[in-house]
Amino acid sequence: METKGTILSYRPDVRVVDATIRDGGLVNDFRFTDEFVKNLYKANIKAGVDYMEFGYKASSDIFPKADFGPWKFCDESDIRRIVGDNDSDMKIAVMADVGRTDFKRDIIDRSNSVIDLVRVATYINTIPAAIEMVEYCHEKGYETTINIMAISNDNDTDIDEALDLIGHSSVDGIYIVDSYGAIYPEQMRKLADKYLAFAEKYNKYVGIHAHNNQQLAFANTIEALSRGVSYLDVTVSGMGRGAGNCASEILLGFLKNPKYNILPILDILEKEILPLKEQGVIWGYDIPYLLTGQLNQHPRTAIAATREKRTDYRKFYVDLVDYK
Amino acid sequence: METKGTILSYRPDVRVVDATIRDGGLVNDFRFTDEFVKNLYKANIKAGVDYMEFGYKASSDIFPKADFGPWKFCDESDIRRIVGDNDSDMKIAVMADVGRTDFKRDIIDRSNSVIDLVRVATYINTIPAAIEMVEYCHEKGYETTINIMAISNDNDTDIDEALDLIGHSSVDGIYIVDSYGAIYPEQMRKLADKYLAFAEKYNKYVGIHAHNNQQLAFANTIEALSRGVSYLDVTVSGMGRGAGNCASEILLGFLKNPKYNILPILDILEKEILPLKEQGVIWGYDIPYLLTGQLNQHPRTAIAATREKRTDYRKFYVDLVDYK
Repeated sequence: METKGTILSYRPDVRVVDATIRDGGLVNDFRFTDEFVKNLYKANIKAGVDYMEFGYKASSDIFPKADFGPWKFCDESDIRRIVGDNDSDMKIAVMADVGRTDFKRDIIDRSNSVIDLVRVATYINTIPAAIEMVEYCHEKGYETTINIMAISNDNDTDIDEALDLIGHSSVDGIYIVDSYGAIYPEQMRKLADKYLAFAEKYNKYVGIHAHNNQQLAFANTIEALSRGVSYLDVTVSGMGRGAGNCASEILLGFLKNPKYNILPILDILEKEILPLKEQGVIWGYDIPYLLTGQLNQHPRTAIAATREKRTDYRKFYVDLVDYK
Repeated sequence: METKGTILSYRPDVRVVDATIRDGGLVNDFRFTDEFVKNLYKANIKAGVDYMEFGYKASSDIFPKADFGPWKFCDESDIRRIVGDNDSDMKIAVMADVGRTDFKRDIIDRSNSVIDLVRVATYINTIPAAIEMVEYCHEKGYETTINIMAISNDNDTDIDEALDLIGHSSVDGIYIVDSYGAIYPEQMRKLADKYLAFAEKYNKYVGIHAHNNQQLAFANTIEALSRGVSYLDVTVSGMGRGAGNCASEILLGFLKNPKYNILPILDILEKEILPLKEQGVIWGYDIPYLLTGQLNQHPRTAIAATREKRTDYRKFYVDLVDYK
């Protein structure tokens, strides 16, 4: 498969998806102030961002509402408090986890909703359940994606089978998700080619959601882009679980489409992100995340180590290898 | 040109070059304690690092000795205080800047020196002076490289001519240096192929020295590696001017040659780097460096902004664009 586009031109099929509130919410239990979310919403519109993901559609039967901010649940009324009827060109997305969403109760007709896109997050062994959710949301009128998480732990045969199953569904897009931040650019290009081959066959698009454990989130994103991947997830300052994501400000400075503008994001960095960091909210590249990424492991041990401010890196590493 | 090696095997031609004291010295005026340098020296040997660069061979006629620590000058006696006769498999390197080194006075016969490799740093418009230094050092018995800095601002015709000139010299290796942290992996692969074509013709090797302004130092290093570049510069924790370099701990966790070992570097991170950071020595990825990298500019404005703790990113960006 050939490279799509050049370093100086732009591809009109590219869409930038801001996932700051959703992935960043994993760091602060979704307790963003309304002001933060409103300012980010306005900045994303000015920056030319194509989609803004507001959070999860989690079931309140599973997760007590008192334990989280509103963006764990993304009630229609909460989103509308920020966006009104969303009188803008930017679309609104939410994420729905397989097995953690009461979609038949909580996902209403799109005609009554301000939400445009439902992204279904799944592991590879729950693809049929993901497809059931996709068909339901598609029937309700939504755009949909399936985001296969933790793909670095799956084998090629299973991925092929999953992509073929998904290809036969009504889904619009399929996401490569490097949950562990373990994938190298060389591998990402091959993975992108594989996803794109299925996507072209079944007329879907492909997206990428990268993590920064090995400082490869941006590199993997633009390498996937160069193969033909078109939906690109970012978060401001890379805010997200553990080592975080591909940063909006890095990607927007790279993309050549003149609709994108880095300046409103620079304002958010100064006025919203710096205060958050000063309050002690922690994310981003650090040694424990590097090590779980290198070892292709879930970041949970690194998140715990960071929380405990552990700096005994050698012992942490030896424990990881032992555990593996 | 084809990819060299696979993601699981290793290439015996790869050499890891630790430049912590040299590039990191630009952050603290080369004022490392002897204990720091000794511990790093020992850790690098245990980690399987192939070369350790101790600093610059700067002329004391140009730079007053009182204004810097010893590693700006790398006197033979200073290096020997750390390494004795360097009874190890790791080689010792120094850097000599064109126009800032009194090489005929300060570079002695290799038979009397503990230094193995002299790396000559040059801009593209002083290649003949660099070659003069290389021939002198080669005559004295040293391994040599020419490191063409700030290559992202040069055009292909000039680079071709420079590589051809260098090809005819006695130099052993030619370095790609992304001084501004401006080069994307897609460009780095093309640059690597260009350098490698000349290197193969003239029987030289190619090295890479990357900067992390856009969080691409590691990605660019392994992408260049995959094309055939074999000398890979790293620094512990990426310590280096501005956004810093490709981090030792990231690269060593990637390389598959069993001679490399990340554990001694993890010890240095805990015992030497954390205290340095606590003392207020600042380096590494930050927004001002990102912006100079995106705009392919020298990081000097970003270094000043970081020193002044500026967070008015929008104004900083607008000034950069105006200045350009």
